[in-house]
Amino acid sequence: MAEIKDVLSRFYAVIPAGGIGSRLWPLSRAAAPKFLHDLTGSGQTLLQDTFDRLQPLAAGRTLIITGSVHAESVASQIVDLDPGNLVLEPSPRDSTAAIALAAAILQKREPDVIIGSFAADHVITGQAEFERTVKTAVEVASGGRIVVIGIPPTEASVAFGYIQRGEARASDGDQSANAVFDVKKFVEKPPIARARKYVASGKYLWNAGMFIAPAKLLLEVLAETEPELHRGVMKIADAYDGTGRDAAMAAQWALLKKVAIDYALAEPAAERGLVSVVTADFEWHDVGDFAAIAELQSQGRSGKLAVLGSAKVLADSSSGILVSDTDRLIALIGLEDVIVVDTPDALLITTKEHAQRVKALVDALKQTGHSELL
Amino acid sequence: MAEIKDVLSRFYAVIPAGGIGSRLWPLSRAAAPKFLHDLTGSGQTLLQDTFDRLQPLAAGRTLIITGSVHAESVASQIVDLDPGNLVLEPSPRDSTAAIALAAAILQKREPDVIIGSFAADHVITGQAEFERTVKTAVEVASGGRIVVIGIPPTEASVAFGYIQRGEARASDGDQSANAVFDVKKFVEKPPIARARKYVASGKYLWNAGMFIAPAKLLLEVLAETEPELHRGVMKIADAYDGTGRDAAMAAQWALLKKVAIDYALAEPAAERGLVSVVTADFEWHDVGDFAAIAELQSQGRSGKLAVLGSAKVLADSSSGILVSDTDRLIALIGLEDVIVVDTPDALLITTKEHAQRVKALVDALKQTGHSELL
Repeated sequence: MAEIKDVLSRFYAVIPAGGIGSRLWPLSRAAAPKFLHDLTGSGQTLLQDTFDRLQPLAAGRTLIITGSVHAESVASQIVDLDPGNLVLEPSPRDSTAAIALAAAILQKREPDVIIGSFAADHVITGQAEFERTVKTAVEVASGGRIVVIGIPPTEASVAFGYIQRGEARASDGDQSANAVFDVKKFVEKPPIARARKYVASGKYLWNAGMFIAPAKLLLEVLAETEPELHRGVMKIADAYDGTGRDAAMAAQWALLKKVAIDYALAEPAAERGLVSVVTADFEWHDVGDFAAIAELQSQGRSGKLAVLGSAKVLADSSSGILVSDTDRLIALIGLEDVIVVDTPDALLITTKEHAQRVKALVDALKQTGHSELL
Repeated sequence: MAEIKDVLSRFYAVIPAGGIGSRLWPLSRAAAPKFLHDLTGSGQTLLQDTFDRLQPLAAGRTLIITGSVHAESVASQIVDLDPGNLVLEPSPRDSTAAIALAAAILQKREPDVIIGSFAADHVITGQAEFERTVKTAVEVASGGRIVVIGIPPTEASVAFGYIQRGEARASDGDQSANAVFDVKKFVEKPPIARARKYVASGKYLWNAGMFIAPAKLLLEVLAETEPELHRGVMKIADAYDGTGRDAAMAAQWALLKKVAIDYALAEPAAERGLVSVVTADFEWHDVGDFAAIAELQSQGRSGKLAVLGSAKVLADSSSGILVSDTDRLIALIGLEDVIVVDTPDALLITTKEHAQRVKALVDALKQTGHSELL
């Protein structure tokens, strides 16, 4: 295990804290996105949970990259964060720009750094299992691999991308490590019939968007797949820890191509045979919509009404989830699987069945000029 | 018709404006009951609609009796009301005390006055038909009868009391007058099976709680059925238009028996053979709960979402009714026959099917010490 410890000392956690979470409107907004909320009833926001979860692996070695509009909120929620590890994006340029900039800044500071990227808005239970999985991933990554964490699917979900695994990687005989496979390819969110086949085959894992890799390797792949984006990011990183930071950011950031990291890095790297997957044995939830939060809160028990927030609630024969950002009394009678989200300026009422349609509603709000509510 | 005109000059309209309307919580409250709201989208409150409807029959001859807590609201809504015709109850003592006091005050002023009592919170369409019905009732009343207005039932409702009609009263040959019958008896809200029989028989009418009678006759019956209540009311009326009003009110009002006018007057009078019924040919709605309001708003069209109030609404595949007392955005997705009532301090969500259960919820609020919300 001495070897793993050495390798772990190269590890640096990156938390890209972005994305509005339209499906969680009106709680999640441009000004107060998903990761800044307590969606589990833990008493902490998702970002705080994510940060805390990483500290045993990366104490003092965690970088958060987020929109400059969230600087204050993030700094007030994560009081232990070194100001040098809070990277602010002047505007959203999608995940590749964010993660590549974090990788480039850290690689300038530590040439052999292994970074791990963990979304700020996922829910994970099983701390010990999480740590073991990441340790395994770091070890594999240290051998020159891009390592994704794959979640064994528990249902034929159409809400996630899938990872098709290939050959098992030779284990070094460590029984405590998680199973590792080569990645054949990444598959985007499939239709339900195909999702069922994937799950039945036993050869597919959910792509939870967490990956661990040497920063140098990531940036090498990016230099091939998106050379201009790579060049811009490197210019910012070169200046970042000096006096030219603001000027470089101002000159380069807005020109960076907007592209998801799946397209710019993960898929091309898998084609080049550079990607491995570590099988997770912790519990993972994307909480992408209110139905997912209700599911998580009810722990599979039906007929229960979960309440998040400070509302006074009077419920008669009602189930589902009620999320409140106000202190109003909310009375529910005879509503099954309902979703109620009560905020000072907007109220959403729907059912678990229609939870995914919230995004379309937010799009409609945009088009009808209600951007003050987004 | 000259005779009817003479009789009409004796007519005085009384509007008892009381009752909280628990089934319309949280819109209707102790501080802002049903009659102070616009529940039809007419742009006027139910009280204003009621007052206006009576003006062609009783211009300058309309008295409102309401709780003293509503004095300001009523005065500001009914600007044409003579201050001498706004009678304020220090506390609620049920309908007999209210109507008997109005009758006694008016009879002191005009010994042969014929009063008509019209609830402040009903919805009526068909102004010409309403006026003709009331004129017929006034004419019959002038012959020494207590006359109720009976609504031909359109369904076997269990929400209303019924009137069993007896012999047709001899018509004076006026083809434009409404049909008049003796009343055999009043029946309280029946179970559904009995309601069906009533409706099938063709001999029952809904009791809409509107009645017309010489004040003198009403008070004579009351002196027999509730002598103490009668005495108290007469003492207040004796002093009402003089300097002793406040003292008499303070001394007598709180002692008056709380009893519904159905028990204290209507039923005993029917037993004495003193009551007639005029068949209404206007449209009448009690709007006792939100389902009734939704029904009224949708005019029988299904799949429609009715909106009352100033809410910004974004609805997708939703039907029912949304009543708003705020200017929040309310978004609904995939809800059928829903009832949403949004007020600054309380939110109710239920379905048309459960509309009657709102009253039980209000009772629960009382018991859990949330009286500030009632």
